[in-house]
Amino acid sequence: MRQHRLSLCKQHYLLWLPDQVERFIKKYQMFTKYERVLVAVSGGKDSLALWDILWKLGYQTEGLYINLGIDGDISYSDRSMNFAQSFADQRQLCLHVVDIKDQYLETVPEISMRTKRGREKPCSLCGLIKRYVLNQYAVNGKFDVLVTAHNLDDEAAILLANTLDWSLDYLARGKPVLPLKPGFSKKTKPFCRIYEREAAAFAILNGIEYVRDECPFSIDSKQLFYKKHLNEWEDKQPGTKLRFYLKYLSALEKGAFPSRQDSADNLVHHLCPNCGQPTTTGSLCAFCKLFKEKSISEENSIIK
Amino acid sequence: MRQHRLSLCKQHYLLWLPDQVERFIKKYQMFTKYERVLVAVSGGKDSLALWDILWKLGYQTEGLYINLGIDGDISYSDRSMNFAQSFADQRQLCLHVVDIKDQYLETVPEISMRTKRGREKPCSLCGLIKRYVLNQYAVNGKFDVLVTAHNLDDEAAILLANTLDWSLDYLARGKPVLPLKPGFSKKTKPFCRIYEREAAAFAILNGIEYVRDECPFSIDSKQLFYKKHLNEWEDKQPGTKLRFYLKYLSALEKGAFPSRQDSADNLVHHLCPNCGQPTTTGSLCAFCKLFKEKSISEENSIIK
Repeated sequence: MRQHRLSLCKQHYLLWLPDQVERFIKKYQMFTKYERVLVAVSGGKDSLALWDILWKLGYQTEGLYINLGIDGDISYSDRSMNFAQSFADQRQLCLHVVDIKDQYLETVPEISMRTKRGREKPCSLCGLIKRYVLNQYAVNGKFDVLVTAHNLDDEAAILLANTLDWSLDYLARGKPVLPLKPGFSKKTKPFCRIYEREAAAFAILNGIEYVRDECPFSIDSKQLFYKKHLNEWEDKQPGTKLRFYLKYLSALEKGAFPSRQDSADNLVHHLCPNCGQPTTTGSLCAFCKLFKEKSISEENSIIK
Repeated sequence: MRQHRLSLCKQHYLLWLPDQVERFIKKYQMFTKYERVLVAVSGGKDSLALWDILWKLGYQTEGLYINLGIDGDISYSDRSMNFAQSFADQRQLCLHVVDIKDQYLETVPEISMRTKRGREKPCSLCGLIKRYVLNQYAVNGKFDVLVTAHNLDDEAAILLANTLDWSLDYLARGKPVLPLKPGFSKKTKPFCRIYEREAAAFAILNGIEYVRDECPFSIDSKQLFYKKHLNEWEDKQPGTKLRFYLKYLSALEKGAFPSRQDSADNLVHHLCPNCGQPTTTGSLCAFCKLFKEKSISEENSIIK
């Protein structure tokens, strides 16, 4: 870990990383051992390493895998699910599964092809669907907190993208803990200060099997582009990503973007008339709009 | 100009750029034709192109060249001064010259070698000296406004550096106009929305002779590093720099970094006991400290 000027052997590394994670869970008041934690599990190295660490630390965790129906040479989503299921079975942990095709009659690639947002920005559409389903599952299942395995590389890349764009609403909400609000589960990111390669090293050293290829849709995503640049800076100056992220958190504490932060908190005034989830407008929420478009286009094709 | 999807012939380009600059001078209320403008002139393409444009637009300008005493194969500073002097002579404009060695008994490279800040960050030291001398000259000469030729590439690179570092005090002061304050001249940047290569094209098409090599000290500067990355993003998405800068200005308007902005405005409480310029602390200003260090080290060497 060049940024910490620290080298560890396998044995100590496998103790060091969980220790770090527990420190951040306590520091940012993410959750306690008395709370029920829903872990968003993709079958990749980050989410399985995180779940393993939380389990070893003695937190009360259950997993949620969302089968998005993404194809590849052999179905990418099915392979990912198998890794998540084996992981859970080996540890006798409970893995919940939501199948998008079963639940909403279309896979994510199908929704993506049908909608303008999906065709232009498939990662943004997929993110919307995952956020919606995860939140709904955590709220309905009365979990105390929803946990995602976003690592430091993810957070720094999103932060860089939002900064280059000066997206004030997003910049106001970049904390590792988003509090419970009506209709919204508490959300936390225990890996927010863990580098991607630290999580990968933990998974590999632990013999955790995970899906190794990137999602076939993400190859040209903007996030990968920003990650590439951040990696170059990190190579030149180890610790760049961590400093960028931590100084941002400290800027938030010092009151950067305050007016927006207030307005972002006050944005929720309405409930979606279809699903009852909170939304910023009086009409359908962004998720339900995806399917309204479908029924309209089906009606049109019947009329034709 | 890929970012504007605009191509122009020489004749129209030489009309278009001054027109753009005049638009920004008015939009940001930089100065009027009734005010005395002091242009900071380095002998490079940006400052000479800017001075030429302001002169052609009919503004009341005088130039100030600071001879920093920077050497090179043939003295870099002397060559730069000659370009600035010829430019002014050809147009019968008044060029003031401050020679750092005459005024402070040391060249900038000498001050740089002697001080910790100068050895570690020569560009930062040089910036401090130039800001101090320019401001003092503008205030003492009762100019209404001090103008520097920072272009969009400069502003975007500084902004990116300050953002990666979340330097809230700097982020609060990144506007193209800094207002008049006790002890501080009004400062403006009429090229803030002009790309570096637009300024270069104007200088070349106009037959303006300017010093073409970069300062020999700046070769490894951080700013050049950020410029390289911004150039890559600009290549991939024309207009990236302009959007980054304009969205930042609009974020400032919307109240990002407000508490810091207030505190930055309120920082000046003291006058430097040596030179009388405003300073943030009760002791010597950063500029006078550079020379106090010298007299202390001279005293020490006499004692030894």
